[in-house]
Amino acid sequence: MKISIVGATGYTGAELLRILASHPAAEIQYITSESQPGTAIADIYPHLTRFYTQKLTNLASLEKIAADSDVIFIGLPHGHAMEVGRKATAINANIKIIDLGADYRFKNHDTYEQWYKVPHTHRNANAVYGLTELNRSQIREAAIVGNPGCYTTASILALAPLVKNKLVDLTTIIVDAKSGVSGAGRGLNLGSHFTEVFESVKAYNVGGHRHTPEIEEVLGRLAGEDIILSFTPHLIPMARGILSTCYANLKAGVTAEQVDAAYVSLYGKEYFIRLLGRGGCPATKNTRGSNFCDLGWHIDKRTGRVVAIAAIDNLVKGAAGQAIQNMNVLFNIDERTGLDYAPVYP
Amino acid sequence: MKISIVGATGYTGAELLRILASHPAAEIQYITSESQPGTAIADIYPHLTRFYTQKLTNLASLEKIAADSDVIFIGLPHGHAMEVGRKATAINANIKIIDLGADYRFKNHDTYEQWYKVPHTHRNANAVYGLTELNRSQIREAAIVGNPGCYTTASILALAPLVKNKLVDLTTIIVDAKSGVSGAGRGLNLGSHFTEVFESVKAYNVGGHRHTPEIEEVLGRLAGEDIILSFTPHLIPMARGILSTCYANLKAGVTAEQVDAAYVSLYGKEYFIRLLGRGGCPATKNTRGSNFCDLGWHIDKRTGRVVAIAAIDNLVKGAAGQAIQNMNVLFNIDERTGLDYAPVYP
Amino acid sequence: MKISIVGATGYTGAELLRILASHPAAEIQYITSESQPGTAIADIYPHLTRFYTQKLTNLASLEKIAADSDVIFIGLPHGHAMEVGRKATAINANIKIIDLGADYRFKNHDTYEQWYKVPHTHRNANAVYGLTELNRSQIREAAIVGNPGCYTTASILALAPLVKNKLVDLTTIIVDAKSGVSGAGRGLNLGSHFTEVFESVKAYNVGGHRHTPEIEEVLGRLAGEDIILSFTPHLIPMARGILSTCYANLKAGVTAEQVDAAYVSLYGKEYFIRLLGRGGCPATKNTRGSNFCDLGWHIDKRTGRVVAIAAIDNLVKGAAGQAIQNMNVLFNIDERTGLDYAPVYP
Amino acid sequence: MKISIVGATGYTGAELLRILASHPAAEIQYITSESQPGTAIADIYPHLTRFYTQKLTNLASLEKIAADSDVIFIGLPHGHAMEVGRKATAINANIKIIDLGADYRFKNHDTYEQWYKVPHTHRNANAVYGLTELNRSQIREAAIVGNPGCYTTASILALAPLVKNKLVDLTTIIVDAKSGVSGAGRGLNLGSHFTEVFESVKAYNVGGHRHTPEIEEVLGRLAGEDIILSFTPHLIPMARGILSTCYANLKAGVTAEQVDAAYVSLYGKEYFIRLLGRGGCPATKNTRGSNFCDLGWHIDKRTGRVVAIAAIDNLVKGAAGQAIQNMNVLFNIDERTGLDYAPVYP
Repeated sequence: MKISIVGATGYTGAELLRILASHPAAEIQYITSESQPGTAIADIYPHLTRFYTQKLTNLASLEKIAADSDVIFIGLPHGHAMEVGRKATAINANIKIIDLGADYRFKNHDTYEQWYKVPHTHRNANAVYGLTELNRSQIREAAIVGNPGCYTTASILALAPLVKNKLVDLTTIIVDAKSGVSGAGRGLNLGSHFTEVFESVKAYNVGGHRHTPEIEEVLGRLAGEDIILSFTPHLIPMARGILSTCYANLKAGVTAEQVDAAYVSLYGKEYFIRLLGRGGCPATKNTRGSNFCDLGWHIDKRTGRVVAIAAIDNLVKGAAGQAIQNMNVLFNIDERTGLDYAPVYP
Repeated sequence: MKISIVGATGYTGAELLRILASHPAAEIQYITSESQPGTAIADIYPHLTRFYTQKLTNLASLEKIAADSDVIFIGLPHGHAMEVGRKATAINANIKIIDLGADYRFKNHDTYEQWYKVPHTHRNANAVYGLTELNRSQIREAAIVGNPGCYTTASILALAPLVKNKLVDLTTIIVDAKSGVSGAGRGLNLGSHFTEVFESVKAYNVGGHRHTPEIEEVLGRLAGEDIILSFTPHLIPMARGILSTCYANLKAGVTAEQVDAAYVSLYGKEYFIRLLGRGGCPATKNTRGSNFCDLGWHIDKRTGRVVAIAAIDNLVKGAAGQAIQNMNVLFNIDERTGLDYAPVYP
Repeated sequence: MKISIVGATGYTGAELLRILASHPAAEIQYITSESQPGTAIADIYPHLTRFYTQKLTNLASLEKIAADSDVIFIGLPHGHAMEVGRKATAINANIKIIDLGADYRFKNHDTYEQWYKVPHTHRNANAVYGLTELNRSQIREAAIVGNPGCYTTASILALAPLVKNKLVDLTTIIVDAKSGVSGAGRGLNLGSHFTEVFESVKAYNVGGHRHTPEIEEVLGRLAGEDIILSFTPHLIPMARGILSTCYANLKAGVTAEQVDAAYVSLYGKEYFIRLLGRGGCPATKNTRGSNFCDLGWHIDKRTGRVVAIAAIDNLVKGAAGQAIQNMNVLFNIDERTGLDYAPVYP
Repeated sequence: MKISIVGATGYTGAELLRILASHPAAEIQYITSESQPGTAIADIYPHLTRFYTQKLTNLASLEKIAADSDVIFIGLPHGHAMEVGRKATAINANIKIIDLGADYRFKNHDTYEQWYKVPHTHRNANAVYGLTELNRSQIREAAIVGNPGCYTTASILALAPLVKNKLVDLTTIIVDAKSGVSGAGRGLNLGSHFTEVFESVKAYNVGGHRHTPEIEEVLGRLAGEDIILSFTPHLIPMARGILSTCYANLKAGVTAEQVDAAYVSLYGKEYFIRLLGRGGCPATKNTRGSNFCDLGWHIDKRTGRVVAIAAIDNLVKGAAGQAIQNMNVLFNIDERTGLDYAPVYP
């Protein structure tokens, strides 16, 4: 596939390049940056030396980029991505778009506008939410994939079997998530300054993080009814990794075996989801650098709650890896292509 | 005060020694270790060089230790501490005991036996639970203080105002806690091996951690009714610090102002509790090396929940610092003595 | 003492405030910031809550600051500090100045100008280099103290006994130093961005770091002849701490015992220098949060070299702590006042 | 190739398995562990789930292992590896052995015995030192490869061009090396306990580390004369990565351009060595998870020294990756096979 990456200098863009370097069908056409056009990507990210000699171009060349690409990955701030999506699909009717931001994630555009504070300008897009394991068949038919957020990937994967099978009281869902600092991006701010973050943990955006409505919409569709839940993100002193610890009250009479069966039924054949089973405690380290999501769940008989826990690498299954998984689906090749390597442990 | 520390070579013992080195009224009499008697403490913990020339003795000298001490801190495994407590109080009727383990934490000894799997052999002790801010007046009259666990200190302090003032539905409490690795002690095991823990986060003992019944008993007494709650501890790649993120459903009609008032009313005059207020997000780093507990709380109108968050240094307010605070209370000196220094940030 | 801190919002300023909070003779008069005047220091550094209610002023008030202070600590960029020093000493003839930057560190102002690329505008200052253990008696008589750099403190302390006693070939000195990231300050840049620094180590400014001529001048004076040496700083993924590993060829016939004697003779009575002896390997962690410098040395018979290693906390003995040690000397009080607490380990 | 790994449960064994999982020609036959035979490797290392279903066997099956394998990787303690090598080559005359320990690294067996304190029992082996870039043609003809140590790989690669081209005074070489904690292995000891290592840096084995004679022998052969040098390893709070900072005095008249030419001449065509050039400062993070060695060098005109710096991932180019590179050479396939992926940054 001829691939371009629009907005390639963030961590997500760099991770796309890292993974695509070993993807047998990938040909990188254009990579763009509005701030550093003309610079070689390996000068910005020296770890990519030997893999890319390309220089960055910018969006002034969008016409050419869209015409010459089979697929564009977009790594732009929300609001900007849908402009590129709208134009690129107009230029090249066959192009596929995979947006790593939020612009194409919502079916309900009003929810998007309410949480993201910008008008949605591409409401008629043929777009699908790209949580591959849940939406594979729709993705295959889509022109545009709204690639899920990092927190949302882990949280939805942990909760989907419970919600889909109506095993839990939907009003009792709480997601307590922990992320490494790469999730905050490469932009400089005091909250990502080494000395401030090291040997510290804290919550942020309590009750107000934008991944909340994304989790709610996707789980709500699975459940067939609206869901309102609590989501609390935390910053952890590590570079990569997300752990989502999810709580919900089991409905009366639901057995542990039913819970087990729900996980096995939904994920038993999924390559990138590794079930640690009931009592399993996934560690982010076991997924580092890979596209795997490790899942464990616990039945707390004392409280009648289920605790489901998912671990991913936020930059891979939570961003670039899942985007490439979606690309593989869009182009009808083995979903594991370019992604089938073991995590980097320890 | 003439102070002895029984079981001084764990991190809690070392932290007691660190803090007591600057306590103007402290005189260290004996320090013990069953595994390394005869060794100078500064050979085991070189950071204590200049502060202690003492060598370790062992429990064979308990008679002498109890006779010559005003107070004994105990840093032994559960089951062993109450044996020392029983004997020491028999030897010296005026002695004060501060146990940093679980043996004296429970009013309900059956709960203790059920979770700790050993018979309680000192049921008639004049013992009080040492969460200073909640039990100050009883501590003053006690012979023995059961110093709280690290997770429990943070979790109870976060939830007490809500529970005491009946602002939340007691059946909905969930505590999601994150701890640095020093909480796992100095004993060698793969779970504390640097290379395994670094750049990783995971939950452990989900639904089964022994701090659960401790939180439940103390909050239950505040509420005047039994409480069953969910508690999930997580291991974070840092040495010190605990963050407890606590969730509960607000009762119908409870206002944000009532929540604020509950915190201010209980803690407004507490020196070691720093209220960050509604919307505040405490970071463990701001408490590192100090006896402070930083507290913030959040009202999530969408879900009707309150999220209360507490940050402490697990070795100070979560162990040695609070133990010394309790010692100050027991001996009727200013509670801040030896503890009134600023956290080590960054 | 009435103390003001000019440029208080960097890590060095915050560390001065942290330590001075427990200094029995310290009264903070003014604290300044050119970027955030009017802000409460505890809003910028929440860990200082309970210790300071002051708000920041700025240098527009220098007249008042100088008149009302016994001592001013300066935490400004080089070039600016000497302007404040010049004006403040003119306003208040009795004032003491302790500059934590480079402006007053050099006896040879030409060297300063060559490395720092600005003219020296206060050449006639009554200034002394503030490495307390080496210059104590001159500091006592000075008006201005040029407080040493962090790398230089560790490196000079490690090498001074060897150089002073002419035990090593002065043309063979190599200093390989490792620093935590707080040494790079609180200013935002990619080189201090958490995700870039974590799980990485690298050298920087090889052969060109400005602490090089400072080490050379001070050791050169001790030796009585010019010294040119190699100095290589490295960035380590931790917040605090510097380790200086120093190499030199022993002169022919020098024995291990002579080396030992040189260390004991120079430092045997120094409270803040803890000699680990021949074969000792200091760890930065054993000094964290404290004013100690831990020192060990090794004789490598195979190569005829001595390897001397010093560990300090870069923000304490390498900056704020030594500055306060110097203040104590200037005001003729016990040098340990406010600094006599144990390191925060682990 | 039919591959067996003898001693597969250390970090080096796990890393071999991680990399071989994506090697197109690799077929794993047997993996062994003396301590955990019968256990599935994925139960010990869950990150390998999906890649290996094998269970561990043990050395009781050596006859079968040697007969059924084309190549055996050995991850045993020194002294034991050569026993396996001796027996396996006797069983199967065509087998190739790649030992990741020290037993086959030395041409001078007396040096080996002196530093490793065991007799060498396989002196007549057809063994070659496996620093691929230096010994490629000899490796191709060998039966046994002594795979280099982690420190030695980085240090030799940094110094080889200088030594081979006689650009430096061989009596002045100093290597100051910094390693992540995975280099200390998975065995439990206080020196690798998370809480002890975190936020700390220290030297160890100063002047006595066993990688010293290995570096000396290899460089000595390149130089054509004996070399004695100083080597100081340091422990850094990270999991992976080694940085070797190497110092030497340039011979009189040697120019910077000659130094540049020496590096380009030796490494210009080497895929796995990435030259950052004169003034370059490699960071271990840019090599993480990959087989690359990043190299930079600096001419310090003031001191007449060259400072050469190499960064590698200790578990890849410093162990398992280079071992697989050597396997590719032994079997005459493209050296990059299975190793040609980008580092995991950030």
